[in-house]
Amino acid sequence: MMRVDLNSDMGESFGPWVMGDDNALLDIVTSANIACGFHAGDPDVMARTMSLAHARGVGIGAHPGFADLQGFGRRRIRLGAEELGNMVAYQVGAAIGMARMAGVELRHLKLHGALSNMATDEPELARICYDAVLKVDPSLVLVVLAGTALEAAARDLGAAYASEIFADRAYNDDASLVDRGQPGAVLHDPDEAGKRMVEMIREGAIITGSGKRIPCRIDTICVHGDSAQAVAMAATVKKTLTDAGIEVKRFD
Amino acid sequence: MMRVDLNSDMGESFGPWVMGDDNALLDIVTSANIACGFHAGDPDVMARTMSLAHARGVGIGAHPGFADLQGFGRRRIRLGAEELGNMVAYQVGAAIGMARMAGVELRHLKLHGALSNMATDEPELARICYDAVLKVDPSLVLVVLAGTALEAAARDLGAAYASEIFADRAYNDDASLVDRGQPGAVLHDPDEAGKRMVEMIREGAIITGSGKRIPCRIDTICVHGDSAQAVAMAATVKKTLTDAGIEVKRFD
Amino acid sequence: MMRVDLNSDMGESFGPWVMGDDNALLDIVTSANIACGFHAGDPDVMARTMSLAHARGVGIGAHPGFADLQGFGRRRIRLGAEELGNMVAYQVGAAIGMARMAGVELRHLKLHGALSNMATDEPELARICYDAVLKVDPSLVLVVLAGTALEAAARDLGAAYASEIFADRAYNDDASLVDRGQPGAVLHDPDEAGKRMVEMIREGAIITGSGKRIPCRIDTICVHGDSAQAVAMAATVKKTLTDAGIEVKRFD
Amino acid sequence: MMRVDLNSDMGESFGPWVMGDDNALLDIVTSANIACGFHAGDPDVMARTMSLAHARGVGIGAHPGFADLQGFGRRRIRLGAEELGNMVAYQVGAAIGMARMAGVELRHLKLHGALSNMATDEPELARICYDAVLKVDPSLVLVVLAGTALEAAARDLGAAYASEIFADRAYNDDASLVDRGQPGAVLHDPDEAGKRMVEMIREGAIITGSGKRIPCRIDTICVHGDSAQAVAMAATVKKTLTDAGIEVKRFD
Repeated sequence: MMRVDLNSDMGESFGPWVMGDDNALLDIVTSANIACGFHAGDPDVMARTMSLAHARGVGIGAHPGFADLQGFGRRRIRLGAEELGNMVAYQVGAAIGMARMAGVELRHLKLHGALSNMATDEPELARICYDAVLKVDPSLVLVVLAGTALEAAARDLGAAYASEIFADRAYNDDASLVDRGQPGAVLHDPDEAGKRMVEMIREGAIITGSGKRIPCRIDTICVHGDSAQAVAMAATVKKTLTDAGIEVKRFD
Repeated sequence: MMRVDLNSDMGESFGPWVMGDDNALLDIVTSANIACGFHAGDPDVMARTMSLAHARGVGIGAHPGFADLQGFGRRRIRLGAEELGNMVAYQVGAAIGMARMAGVELRHLKLHGALSNMATDEPELARICYDAVLKVDPSLVLVVLAGTALEAAARDLGAAYASEIFADRAYNDDASLVDRGQPGAVLHDPDEAGKRMVEMIREGAIITGSGKRIPCRIDTICVHGDSAQAVAMAATVKKTLTDAGIEVKRFD
Repeated sequence: MMRVDLNSDMGESFGPWVMGDDNALLDIVTSANIACGFHAGDPDVMARTMSLAHARGVGIGAHPGFADLQGFGRRRIRLGAEELGNMVAYQVGAAIGMARMAGVELRHLKLHGALSNMATDEPELARICYDAVLKVDPSLVLVVLAGTALEAAARDLGAAYASEIFADRAYNDDASLVDRGQPGAVLHDPDEAGKRMVEMIREGAIITGSGKRIPCRIDTICVHGDSAQAVAMAATVKKTLTDAGIEVKRFD
Repeated sequence: MMRVDLNSDMGESFGPWVMGDDNALLDIVTSANIACGFHAGDPDVMARTMSLAHARGVGIGAHPGFADLQGFGRRRIRLGAEELGNMVAYQVGAAIGMARMAGVELRHLKLHGALSNMATDEPELARICYDAVLKVDPSLVLVVLAGTALEAAARDLGAAYASEIFADRAYNDDASLVDRGQPGAVLHDPDEAGKRMVEMIREGAIITGSGKRIPCRIDTICVHGDSAQAVAMAATVKKTLTDAGIEVKRFD
């Protein structure tokens, strides 16, 4: 039987400010990428979100980003190699601490926002980030964008990794995501998104906007939870997968 | 043979700002309490300080404080119980991450500044903080002020702990430190400080300003490194101990 | 004709996080107390909120609080006198800058959260804060809690001030607000709140829970906007005042 | 009689961390560019530094940078146009507030670090920053790098400005500074630096490493104060100028 994991970013509230409906999303996904307090999240939000995830058997991951709360980690910041590694290690360590407060162990890692984008564009940055992660805990599973420098870096480091595709994003012919500014970059129809996911998993390939097939390993699908529509799409994608005989199950 | 550990706070630089001469101090002390980025320190300072400490066989501890960089963690901030525990756990986790970047494991913990003062005044706070620490890593050694609520909390939790006296601070008859605002609160003569330490360790007691003896367990002596004089005092205290046949060795 | 101002805290979003419906509230109130980036708000939120307020002729005020984003300025932090004054002056200056970006001048000031509570409890703190405000701009109007140490401090300093009562909070017999933890502390019925306001303004007195009248100057009523109900209450209070022949108009 | 201003960045301490010897430098320079709390400085440091400067008749300027304390504002951060303008306006406003706490009015502005570098590279950014500054206070004098896009932007906006050369930096033939990584980029000999300044001012031109003359307006010379040598160089440059009959006086 075919199977796939469903992952989502969460724990993106901060202090008195709420973002997303983590509670609803945790009933759908099998892996949670939890913000580590630099671009979103705080120790209390992390502890609460990890407890909720743990109670449902959802896998817990660190989701580190740049130290830029106001910019939500979406602004590119140019750091030196050592600074970059330390910044990631600090957040992974903090996530390990908060996971233990929730009675569970950290299992995976996914880079956030501008940090992820820069690491995708510059393979050396990916290597630095992942190397730091593995120094902190060599057993962590790296969640990487399928077919990108992130996947190559994880493979080169001999790390356990989970290769990810997006439920709601169109792909270019080089396996990169269509820029959000372009028309059609983001899919809004849950049924269409679900069917496309089934197709990609069955074919073991990314299907681009032009119809091209890029064979790749697919372990997990990224869904979003920042709006009611997003949660509804996540639920539809899951149902469509299940109905098609693809088991939705967390990766090991 | 009698023995005692020498500990000091360090890693208190931040970004471009340097504080203390950690390099000099690391040749003297046997345990380093390293700031965790909330009241001082940053991921780069932590990594560098831990590497230097590890290279000399100095034991590495987390030194968490309030999230108050401008106030250096010396301002009292009133947090809820859950917030307090999470804040401490986050920093301990981060310190675990940075220690692993330096190729070593975190071994101990000591609370900083206003957080330590509040926990000394309010036993419930000490219990909350230490409970969080032990949830993150039950093997961590808690460094506590000898004869205070901190020691009681560590004992009640069944934790491994190291009981600490201060080389350069005068004591009240209830084992508390004389307030810094009082005359004679801080000792400036290294020889006097060294002799006093030898005496306390031999007698197994805190000797107060009035000459009273308060029997207590003494595992480690706190010295400072924030000035050239402080480093000189630490060196003199160490030499005086060694000359008196007391081995200066890190606690296990 | 009797008249009163309606004020509300706003500009409490931060980066990607939204709080309150400022747009709706700005159609109701006549004065806006705008967070200054320390406990909430950021330069972009400040500029946007001030522009929206200015476009509707709503008076613009600085709403400084403690530098505690995670705690939303609701945690008490113990600062020295000089630190306290400087912290307030910095935020007032920043608000002046952002107001000019919006093409308008800052007109008033109201302290936020724990800072306001501490200044109400400790008259010396109120004096320090207001003194700093007036050094930055002696023409600013201080919005103070009617009948408290805040009002006394404003009067003693010879400052222009606006005396404030709360639409939705019950009062103790000493003119203080009933603690939020007590039953009946917060009024939820818009009609009741509106009628109570009309009564207080007509009588020129705070009416306490026991029915006691405390004569005082009333220049402005504080309403909230952090929920749809809060906005509805603000609208009802305004309508009730207007229907009773009390003009709702910004203070000069 | 020829005259020139001497300016220096200062107020770069933060909380418990000291940077530079502002007190010594304030006896030498005629204009102080004071950090505004985003990349360095805090309200207390600002108030103290401005008071010291005011007491000596040194002109007071805002020195805004990116919100990046750990990176000291030296990391490039990509912001949107509106965000950039608001970030600058906020800091200028805060500086106005702190200057008034010191009993003086803010007189000038100079961009810091990566923000200045980016604005020099991208004229559009210079225009956005300066436009925000002038919205907050149209009378502020903009301190710009002589012969660069910064000067052009100030001129295009019709702003009062002071054109600056560096005492200790070598110049390329396009009037840009030789990159710090290149040999000879930084001058270390105070006498050589002083003589070079006299020459440039007399000729009314930047003299590049190759000996080329680039005619330009020179209103102020930038000196540094981050080390004892830096302070000594500033003093020597001043003496050399004075001995050569060039008056060192603050710009109006």
